[in-house]
Amino acid sequence: MTHPLDVPALHPAIAPLGFLVGTWVGEGEGEYPTIEPFAYTEQITVSHVGKPFLAYAQRTWSADDGRPLHAETGYWRAAPGGAVELVVAHPTGHAELAEGTLAGHVVSVRTLGVQRTTSAKEVTAIARRLTVEGDHLHYELDMAAVGQPLVRHLRGTLLRVSAEQRA
Amino acid sequence: MTHPLDVPALHPAIAPLGFLVGTWVGEGEGEYPTIEPFAYTEQITVSHVGKPFLAYAQRTWSADDGRPLHAETGYWRAAPGGAVELVVAHPTGHAELAEGTLAGHVVSVRTLGVQRTTSAKEVTAIARRLTVEGDHLHYELDMAAVGQPLVRHLRGTLLRVSAEQRA
Repeated sequence: MTHPLDVPALHPAIAPLGFLVGTWVGEGEGEYPTIEPFAYTEQITVSHVGKPFLAYAQRTWSADDGRPLHAETGYWRAAPGGAVELVVAHPTGHAELAEGTLAGHVVSVRTLGVQRTTSAKEVTAIARRLTVEGDHLHYELDMAAVGQPLVRHLRGTLLRVSAEQRA
Repeated sequence: MTHPLDVPALHPAIAPLGFLVGTWVGEGEGEYPTIEPFAYTEQITVSHVGKPFLAYAQRTWSADDGRPLHAETGYWRAAPGGAVELVVAHPTGHAELAEGTLAGHVVSVRTLGVQRTTSAKEVTAIARRLTVEGDHLHYELDMAAVGQPLVRHLRGTLLRVSAEQRA
C-alpha cells in the first residue's frame, strides 16, 4: 500500500511529458504590436500527484522593479495517440484550451478556442512551443488579440532549479 | 516604495471579494445520478498579489484512503457594477468560465460556457454558490454533464485555517 504522503510514481499516461516536471526559473522578453517591449523574471512549476495530468503554474515579475506581471495556472494532459492537451486559466479573464503534439522534448500546442469573461480583452488564439534540453526550458508564445494576427508575444529561457515532483 | 516582498494591500477592485482570502480546509460530499456518492477532504487556497484578481486553487482527497481526487485552479475577478467573474482550469480537460453576482458574503456564479479538450467528458454547465460566515465557508456546486440536467454534484464546509494573503 502506498502511503498518501509518499512521492507517487508518474502515471504512465502522462510519463511522455514527465520531462516538464520541476520548478523552473529564468528570464523572458515580451513584445506585441500594441505595446512597448518588456523584460521579466519568471517561475514555472510543473508537478503531479500520480494521476494522468501535470499541474502547471506560472508567475512573472517585471525585470525593472519586481512588481508582479502575469500569472497563469492549469493542467497538461496527454491524450491517446501522442496528442497533448493544455487547459489554462488566466487572471485576465481568459480560459485557454489548446491541443497539439509532442516530438522528442518539444511540445507544440495551439488553442482550439479562447473563452473570455465579459470584462476581458479580446484574445482569439494562442500558440505555445516549449523545448526542454537537459535542465533548460525554452519557450515561445504567439498570440492573436485585440485585432492583431497571431504574432510573437513572449519568449523565455528557464533553468530547472528543483526536480521536486509533488504538487 | 513598496518592497516586492512586502505583503501588498488588496487591490480596491477586488476588495469586495476579500472575505474569500485565506487557506481553508474541511470536508465535502459528492453525488451525481451516474455515480456512487462519495466523501472527501478538501483544501482551498485564495490569495492575491495586490492586483485586481484573486488566485484560487483547490484539491480534494478521498475520505476513505487519502488518495487524490479532484483538483482545480484559476482566478476570481470583480467586474464593474458588482459582477463577479471566475475562470477555472480542470485537470479533466475542462475550462470553466462563469459569471454572477455578490450579495453580502454570498457569491453565486454560473458558466457562460464550458470548453473541453478532445479527450474530455461532456460537461455543459456548472453553477457555484459560496457563502462565508466568519471563518466558515460553505459551498454548493451543481453540474450538467454526460446528458444529465443541472443538478447537485458537490457540497462542502471548510474552516479558514490561515488568513495569509500572499500567493
